[in-house]
Parts: sequence; structure tokens; C-alpha cells
Amino acid sequence: AEPRRLLPLFLGLFQGALLLFFTLFVTYDEPSAQAEDTDLVANQVYSTFPFFQDIQVMLVVGLGLLLTFLPRYGLSALTHNFLLLNFSMQWALVLQGLLHHFHHGQIHLDLHKLLISEFAAVTVLISVGAILGRASPCQLLVMATCEIPAYLTSEWVIVTCLGVLDVGSTITIHVFSCYFGLGVSKALFRATQQPLHPKETPTPRSDLTSLVGTLILWVFWPSFVAVLCQPGDAQHRAIMNTLLAMSASAITTVVASSLLERDGKLSPGHLQNGSLAGGVAIGVVADMAMPPVAALALGSLSAVVCVLGFRFFTPLLGRKLTLHDQCGIHNLHGLPGILGATASIVAILVAPKDTSESHPSQLPPAGGNASEVVEGQWGGRGAGGQALCQAAGLAVAIGASLLAGLLTGAALRLPCLARPPERLCFDDSLYFKIQDQAESPGPDSGAEEGALALKE
Amino acid sequence: AEPRRLLPLFLGLFQGALLLFFTLFVTYDEPSAQAEDTDLVANQVYSTFPFFQDIQVMLVVGLGLLLTFLPRYGLSALTHNFLLLNFSMQWALVLQGLLHHFHHGQIHLDLHKLLISEFAAVTVLISVGAILGRASPCQLLVMATCEIPAYLTSEWVIVTCLGVLDVGSTITIHVFSCYFGLGVSKALFRATQQPLHPKETPTPRSDLTSLVGTLILWVFWPSFVAVLCQPGDAQHRAIMNTLLAMSASAITTVVASSLLERDGKLSPGHLQNGSLAGGVAIGVVADMAMPPVAALALGSLSAVVCVLGFRFFTPLLGRKLTLHDQCGIHNLHGLPGILGATASIVAILVAPKDTSESHPSQLPPAGGNASEVVEGQWGGRGAGGQALCQAAGLAVAIGASLLAGLLTGAALRLPCLARPPERLCFDDSLYFKIQDQAESPGPDSGAEEGALALKE
Amino acid sequence: AEPRRLLPLFLGLFQGALLLFFTLFVTYDEPSAQAEDTDLVANQVYSTFPFFQDIQVMLVVGLGLLLTFLPRYGLSALTHNFLLLNFSMQWALVLQGLLHHFHHGQIHLDLHKLLISEFAAVTVLISVGAILGRASPCQLLVMATCEIPAYLTSEWVIVTCLGVLDVGSTITIHVFSCYFGLGVSKALFRATQQPLHPKETPTPRSDLTSLVGTLILWVFWPSFVAVLCQPGDAQHRAIMNTLLAMSASAITTVVASSLLERDGKLSPGHLQNGSLAGGVAIGVVADMAMPPVAALALGSLSAVVCVLGFRFFTPLLGRKLTLHDQCGIHNLHGLPGILGATASIVAILVAPKDTSESHPSQLPPAGGNASEVVEGQWGGRGAGGQALCQAAGLAVAIGASLLAGLLTGAALRLPCLARPPERLCFDDSLYFKIQDQAESPGPDSGAEEGALALKE
Repeated sequence: AEPRRLLPLFLGLFQGALLLFFTLFVTYDEPSAQAEDTDLVANQVYSTFPFFQDIQVMLVVGLGLLLTFLPRYGLSALTHNFLLLNFSMQWALVLQGLLHHFHHGQIHLDLHKLLISEFAAVTVLISVGAILGRASPCQLLVMATCEIPAYLTSEWVIVTCLGVLDVGSTITIHVFSCYFGLGVSKALFRATQQPLHPKETPTPRSDLTSLVGTLILWVFWPSFVAVLCQPGDAQHRAIMNTLLAMSASAITTVVASSLLERDGKLSPGHLQNGSLAGGVAIGVVADMAMPPVAALALGSLSAVVCVLGFRFFTPLLGRKLTLHDQCGIHNLHGLPGILGATASIVAILVAPKDTSESHPSQLPPAGGNASEVVEGQWGGRGAGGQALCQAAGLAVAIGASLLAGLLTGAALRLPCLARPPERLCFDDSLYFKIQDQAESPGPDSGAEEGALALKE
Repeated sequence: AEPRRLLPLFLGLFQGALLLFFTLFVTYDEPSAQAEDTDLVANQVYSTFPFFQDIQVMLVVGLGLLLTFLPRYGLSALTHNFLLLNFSMQWALVLQGLLHHFHHGQIHLDLHKLLISEFAAVTVLISVGAILGRASPCQLLVMATCEIPAYLTSEWVIVTCLGVLDVGSTITIHVFSCYFGLGVSKALFRATQQPLHPKETPTPRSDLTSLVGTLILWVFWPSFVAVLCQPGDAQHRAIMNTLLAMSASAITTVVASSLLERDGKLSPGHLQNGSLAGGVAIGVVADMAMPPVAALALGSLSAVVCVLGFRFFTPLLGRKLTLHDQCGIHNLHGLPGILGATASIVAILVAPKDTSESHPSQLPPAGGNASEVVEGQWGGRGAGGQALCQAAGLAVAIGASLLAGLLTGAALRLPCLARPPERLCFDDSLYFKIQDQAESPGPDSGAEEGALALKE
Repeated sequence: AEPRRLLPLFLGLFQGALLLFFTLFVTYDEPSAQAEDTDLVANQVYSTFPFFQDIQVMLVVGLGLLLTFLPRYGLSALTHNFLLLNFSMQWALVLQGLLHHFHHGQIHLDLHKLLISEFAAVTVLISVGAILGRASPCQLLVMATCEIPAYLTSEWVIVTCLGVLDVGSTITIHVFSCYFGLGVSKALFRATQQPLHPKETPTPRSDLTSLVGTLILWVFWPSFVAVLCQPGDAQHRAIMNTLLAMSASAITTVVASSLLERDGKLSPGHLQNGSLAGGVAIGVVADMAMPPVAALALGSLSAVVCVLGFRFFTPLLGRKLTLHDQCGIHNLHGLPGILGATASIVAILVAPKDTSESHPSQLPPAGGNASEVVEGQWGGRGAGGQALCQAAGLAVAIGASLLAGLLTGAALRLPCLARPPERLCFDDSLYFKIQDQAESPGPDSGAEEGALALKE
């Protein structure tokens, strides 16, 4: 019974500490005195808030539904995703406040800082995909606790120190969280190969709700990529490139899945992930000077890579490295992310000189000093230097995340964190009071499909 | 067969009368002649329309799905919610037009007036929660017909006469509609305790769609609270406070539910409601001058109150007062609303003098005269006076709604309104032509619920 | 096995050709040099992008879910809708680029052109409704390939040549795509009456997801109608009229369905379609000078027409003309569209002279020259002339679409396009690798949960 109490204890203590921290350090800005300042604030709200809402829909509803492909684990997937988003966002708010925004003993909170914290939380939501259904909520919270500081450090090195261009956070978020998740999975499950669990197989209905989640993510993805762009041309181009890449991904996924599956049928899992691969890959280059065809090609290529990953790479990793990747995050976030980083190197090397002034389109990163990033073309380091930085940034993201993930995964093996026994994995009834199933007696309790089947 | 015809008769007559009313009295504004006017209109559209759409998503999709927790009553819940929203909005448009906007025999319709009418309709959608599944559509329409004028009167007293500050309409809408609904329930069901109906218990799948509804409401809630704020600092603060309160609610709900339930499991019902409690409570104070920690604390506290309400208060009300509250609206709207009103009294009493000019951030209420509300700090009545007004407003909301609800509930007992027999409650087949369910005989071949039951 | 390879072959070739086309001809605009240009671009993005996202939600999520009323065909309906949207949009981008935007060997891509292509794609998504469930993906793609050029031609004639006023694209899109779809259906199925398929009947659950799709479409419909309006009064009026029409539709649908069905019960199909009929009809007149009551009346009338169509007209067409209309697109798009066109004639004939300067509120059509459309009141042709043009436009839309549809339908009979055998219609398992369905033994082969339970 003890582990049952760990979750509320942990969360309750965290909420208490958060209240204390906010009491001591966090304030809002003073209301602006002049009318023109009011207009400025209003404009900032109008230019950020709609994007912010779109991203909230993506993370809370879209990603949550995407994870409901496990037919008896929908409530848990949706709830854990929701809980982790809130916990990680609050935790990132504290850490970022301490690291970057601590002036004269005060942190001034605004919508932009909340958005940056929400981005940090995305890493946790992605990493969870590697161990979905086989980890307890306590394990997931400990994982979030470790991942956020690792992400903030890695993001600081990649963006502020190395000056990597990554407007859609593909390297800093997608690649990082993928390898962090794989590291956790490896250290948590070690060499034991995970057998196929009978409740692990999607049903047509759970595939349908999961596909709805994909479609919601697909629709709002341009907001995620473009929210941190400077308004104007760069943001317009980021939106256009993302739309093109995702459209190409959608079609290419159908082609690739249909060619790889027996009988030319489509695999729902391919569709649910491949359609989004273009959005991951385009994130690094979305605001760069490149022709529209590059976005299309990158979208197609990343969909191919994603589907091939599901078909060949994930089984291979399972057999050779006993590496378990429940949702296939390596195919959706890892491989397309690396592809996007590579594309950015190519784009920088082949970019004409004179269009380069449109590059520094990204807002200064959280806590970074704008002048450090934006001094001249690529900080004055030239195309070759910038390309090298992109490669270095990718290496940092992979290396740091794998290391941090392995350490975190080892910590998750602590017995007090109550990893569920294999028999009870992938089942909502372990975490939810599901009421009447025992009593439900009647012969035909709601059997519409049954009725349909009988008619034939 | 007669009652079957009452619904189309009632609705048809109403639509006819509405057409007549519009023909006689309602027009649009003349198109603006000058270019700067056009820009002004365009800006008004851009600043209101996105919020309006968000609120429509909340009410039509989010609230509709939240009500589908009754597993065999999903179509009815979604449809009745949709029908009542449209009916109440049109009815409020008529009444508000007559009361507030009637100039020279004409009512000039615009998006803001439609928004205000939609707010009025929200009261009906909330109140229905008390009697969901046990009332016929005719009863619900009669209830809406009575509730809208009661709400408009009460809102006029609270906002225009008393000058209560309530930017998110917590007192005027949430508290009012909760006690109206409870009054209706009491008068409708009287002293007969409602037995647990076999179709009343949620299934994992109905809990899942209901949770999706919660998440949609959760994401868009800041738009509901902030739409009537002045653009600029006040709106920014209202958005931030709502986001913080709802995030704290989400986490605290997990803590509270997990502590209260046997085995530390979570109750889906707690999650579906508790996560939103912070949004209800913050509505009164969202734009007031207070530190961010106050929003967090209020969010946490309201989630605790909501979960405790479900666990202890609702059963108590059922036993002691034979008061039936199907969706637990008292826990989601009543208790957090009262908490928010109390918080506003505290916020006003402890507020420093010099920040008070940021208070009158709310747009003038429907039909109210701006100058009546905004003359100086709290209408020149001082902190103590304003605090007293808040308390008086709360008292008016509770008293007026209970009285109006009891009277309305008595009217709903009219036999011609066709209250469904207990045996047929909570069942779509009473209101929908569902094609092959009647025949569905056999021993549950595909039935998920059946299969689940077999396991245990 | 051969037809199985046709889909990826066709799509793969298309993607290859698209990449080639983009490489040769498509670029972005040069980034703007001056600061005021940047502001202009930013404002264009802010004024178009939110509408664009709303429309994407409608088409990808809303329309997709609406089509899931077939209980075993949800994955296919959602996926085919998604695939066709992307394919048709890309194909329309190519054709529109060649026809309208080809200057000095280059096409300059921007968000507005993407939006116009998305509108073209809507025609395909609507037409599919006539043959949903009985056509293979290859057939649907060939249909899209033929429909897009037919639509572009017809739209050019109607809008650019005839100067028809149709801000919400009702005549050009809804009416056109309806009769195109009916033409395809007639030529594809010829005189064979389609028997009622056992998997064709909705279940309460599939009706529920379909109704959610309707509600999403209902909420965002004003964005679809108003996106091409000039910002300012005309857009405000278009939004208001659409909101009023759809609200009247929702209520009138309940009245009509309840009067027509036995026992006064509601038909889910009526609700799913009738609630949207007002949005279709209002599209032609949404920005015209007319009193609000006209929008209400048009909404009510179109809902009545739609429900009557489902009850009497669709069965009649089936019996007399052996014309199969799976989703009833004639009731949702055809009849209300004709009603809207008629309303526009009346509105033009009775319009007072002096309000006419507010008419040319529509942005110049894709590739059209603004000055051709907007010279004076209705191009100087007077009310009678303009009314005649509206009628001519309607005739062109119906005639051209029927002809093109019949020809396309004949082409779809090519054996290589793999029309599914009747026995396998309306079933996801023909197109999707649904994992444990094939093996699931016993008589209840549809019972996913049952199969799962058995395995344990």
C-alpha cells in the first residue's frame, strides 16, 4: 500500500514548494502607465496567445489522443500526458526563472516565459513514448524531474553557446527527448526483451481515436514551428514550409506504408506517425532561405525514413540491443530530427550570401542575450562555421540526452517507484477506479458491434 | 403520442416568433463610411472573433463531450446541449435586445451582443447538469425559457446595480446556474431519492470521451475568462492567472483524488471536474491586482474543494436533503464559485491603494452604462464598500437562483412535459431513432463491456 | 495483387512530378526590404492564418469525423479524406499556378494561394460523399484528378467571366461538387440499385463520433464563409449572418426531424446534416446588404429542405433514377446551395441602390483581375443583370459538374482501379492491416475486445 501514497505525497510536496517559491520570488510586471505601452502589450497578447492556444490543443488533446492507441490504456495515457505537461511546465518555470530571469530577487512572469516552459515540458511528453504503459506515474514524474534540468542545460549549450539555428526546436526538443527516452528505456528494462503483451495490440477503435490525435497535431503543427519566429516574412516562410512538408509527408506515408505492408494494405501506426514526420524535420530549417521544393522533399524523405524505421529499425533495435520503444519515438522524433539537422547543414552551405540577413529571425532564446546570437550573419562565423555548429549541436543533443536518459532510467529502477508487474501493464484498472464492470450483468450490455456481426 | 408533438410545436412556434421579432426590430449597423472606421471594425472583429470561436468550441464540443460520461446517453447529451445553447442564445438575444438595446424601435445587432447572449446561454447548459438524463427535452426547454430572464435580472442587479467585479462571470453565471439547477432538481424530484440506475455508471470508454471534453474546456478556458477584459495589461493578467490556476487545479486534483480513493486509484469523475475548478474560481479575481501565487493557491484550493465535494458533500446532500445532482455541478460550479467570490473580497481588502486604477478593466456590461461602473476607484466606494458589494452580489446570485430554480422545477412537473419514466432514463433510444439496437438480441458477441465483465 | 500496387505507384509518380514542378517553377517572394513591408506581411499572416487553421480543422478533423458514421469504416473514411485533401490541394496548386500565377516562368507561392488550393480540394471531399464506402482509394484519386481541373474551369467561368457574387463559395464549391459527385455515382453504379449493406447502418457510437464532426464543422463554419471577405464591415456581416443562419438551422432541424420521424424521435442523420445546411445556403449572400432576419429565415428554410430531402428525395432518387447518394450530399450541399443561389437573386433584386457600394467585398478571385470584377456596382450591369448572372452561374455549376461527373464516373469503371466487391464494402479491413482481426476466430470476428479477452 505504501507506493500508492507516493504519488500524492510527491505531487503535494511539489505543489507546496511551488507555492512557496512563487510567494517569495514571482511577480507580474507593473501595469503599463502609458497608452502606447498598453497597445504594445495588447499586440503582444494577440500575436502570441493564438499560437499558445494552438500548442496547448496539440499537447493536451492531440498528443493525448495519439497515445490512446493502446485499447485499454486510454484513460491512463490521456491523464498521465496531462499531468506530466502541467508538472513539467511548472518545474521548468521554476528552473528557468532561477537560471535566466532572476533579477533583483524577482522573476517577472509573462506569457512568453510560460510558452518557453511549455516547450520544455514537450520533451517529457515525447520521452514518455518509449516506456508508455510499462511505467508507473511515480516513475514518470521522477523522469520529468530529471529531464527538465537536463533539457535546459542542453538547450543552453546548443542555442546560446553554439548559436545553433533551430527555429522549430527540432534539435533541442525532438532529438533530445527521443534519445533521452531511449536511454531511460534501456536502463529501465536492461537486457530483458519485452514480450508482446496481449493488451498492447491496437483495435480499430483505438486506432481511430489515435488517428484523430494525429490529425489534430498535423493541423496545428505550423503554430508550433512558427511561434518563436519574428513576425513578418520569416514567420510567413516558416508557416509555408511547414505546411508543404506536412502535406508531402501525408502522401508519402501512404506510398511507403502501402509498399511495405503485405497486400498493399496500410498500417494505422505508420499513418499516425509518418504524417507528422515532416513537421519534425522541417523545424530546423523552416525559416531559412530555401526554395519551396526543399520543404516538400524534406517532408517526403522524413516520411519514408519514419515508415522504414517502424518496419525495420525498431524490430532490429529490439532484437540486437534489446531496446524497447513502445510508441516508436525514434522513428517519429529521432530519425526525422537528424534528417532535419542534416538538411540545415546543407541549406547553410548552399545558401546565397545576400539572403543571409533574413536569418536571425528567431526571437532571442529564453534568458539568452539577443545581441550574442544576432551579431551579423551567423554571429560572423561564416557558412562553414555555422554548419559545423549545427553538427555540434546535434551531437550535443544526442550525447547529452543518452547519458542523462541512462542515468535517469537507472534511478527509475528504485523499488519504491512501483513499476507495474507485466501482467497489469497497459491496463487502466491499475490506476483508475473503474466502477461497475464487476456488476454489469446483462446479456447484451451495449453490444453494437456484436449486433452487427450477428446480422451477417 | 401527444407529448411527442410538443417539442416540435414549442420550438417551431419559437422560431416563428423569433423571425417576426427580427423582422420588426433587428438590424445591422450601417456600413461605416470612412476608412478609419473600417479599420476599427476590422480590429474589433480580430480582437473578439478568435475568443468567440474558442468559447463556441468549449460550449458545443467541450461541454458536449464532458456530458457523454453516461454511456448510453451520449447522443442525447450532445444534442440537448447543442439545442439548448442555440435556443437559449436566441432567447437571450431577444430579451437583452428588449431590455438594453432598444433604441428608436430598433436593435442593432453585432458580434459583441451575440457574445453576451452566448454567455447567458451558458447558465442553462450548466444548470442542466443537475437533472441530466432524467428530464425530457421539453422540460429542458421550459427550464431554459425560465432561466434566461431570471439570469438577466440577477446579472443586472449584480453587475449594474451593485457594481460587483466579476470579469470571468463566476458569480453571475457559475454560482447562479448551479443553485438554479439545484433548485430545479429539488422541486422536480421532491423527496424521492433517485435510485442508482444501471445505465448511469460510466464505462471506461464513456469516461474517455468525457475526459476529452474536459481537456478541451481546460485548454480554452482562458478565452472565456479574458474575452470581456480590456485589451492590454488587464487581459494579459487575466489570461496568465487563469493558466496558473488551471495548472494548479490539474495537479491538485490528482493529489486529492488519489488520497481519497481506496488503493490510491484515481476517480475519472474527479479528474473530469476538478481540473476545471480552478477556472471557475479564478473568474472573479482574474484581472485584479494580486501576485501570481494567489492564482496558484486559488486553483489548488478549488480543486481540493471540488474533489471533497464529490466524495462527501454530494452523497450527503442526497441523503439529508434528497437533493439530486447528476453531474455534480455543485462541486464544479457552486463551491469553487463561492470560493472565488470570497477570494475577491480578500483581494479587494488587501489591495494596495495605488494599483486600483487598473481595476475597471471589464468592458461595460451588456446595456450597462460604462460611466456608472467606472467612476473612480470602485465607484468611489472604497475597499470596504466594494468588498461588501461582492458579498451582496454572491448572496443575490444564490438567493435569486434558488428561488427561481424552485419555481421553475415546480413548473417542470406539469404532466404534459413528458418526464421520462425511470426505466427509460439515461437511454438514447427514447429520443433517437437508433436503427438496429432494438433487434440486437444475442449474447454480446463483440461487446467490450461484456468482454470486460466476463474477465472479472 | 496488381491493383494493390497501383495506389503507391500513382501517388509516388505524382509526388515525383510535383517535386520536379516545384524545382522548376515555384519560389517564395523575396523577403521585404523595408520595415513597413514587414508589418504588412505580418498583418496579412495574422489576418489570414487563424482562418486558415480553422478551415484545416474543419476539413481534416470535422469532415473526417462526420464521415465516420459507417461503423466499420472509420479508419478508411478518416484516412481517405485526409489523403484526398492533401492530394487535391497539391494538384490544385499546380494547376492554378500554371493557369493564373505563371509570370516570367515563375510562380510565387504564398499563404493565400495555398488557401485557394485548399478551397479547390474541398470539392473533392464533398463529392466523395456520394460513393463513400463503395469505391477504392485508386478510384477516389482518379476522381480527384478529374474534378480539380473541372472545378477550376467552372470557377473561372462563374466568378471571373460571369462575375457571380458568391463569397462563401456555395455555388462554385457546394453546388458544383454535389452534382459532380452525383454524376460520378450514376455513371459508376449505372442502373444497379445498391442493396442495403449490413455494415452500412450506423451504430449509436459511430453516430456519436459523426455528430462530433458535425459540431466541429458547425463551430468553424463562419471562418470558411468569411475568410475571403474584405476585413471590416463586410467580414463582420458575413460572420454574423453565418452565425444566425447556422443557429436557425440547428433548431429547425430538430423541429423537422421530430415531425417527420415516427414517434417524434430524432434521426441522428438529420441532425448531422441539417445543422449545417444553413451554412451552405448562406454562403452566397453572407456579405450582401440584407437584414438579419433574412439569414435566420434562410437557415431555417435550408434545414427544412435538407431534412425533407433525406426523408423523401433521396429514396425517390434511388428508386426512380437508381441514383445512389451514400452521405446524402444532395440534401446537404445541393438543395441548400440552390436555395442560397435563389436567395442571392432575391437579395440583389430587392436591394436598395445606395447600399450597393458595400458589395464588392470579396477579394479578387484567384488569378482574376480585381478591376474586372469591381468596376462600379455589379460591374455596371444593374440589379437585373446581376440577378441573371447569378442564375447563369448556378446553371453553369450544375451543368458543368453533371457532365464532368458522368464522364469521370465512366472512367472509374476501368477494371484496373479495383472497385471493391460488394461483400467487402464498408469495411476497414480491406485497406488496413488490422492486426488481430484476421486471426480472431469464432463467429464474432468483429469483436476486438472479445478477441482480446479470449486470448487471456
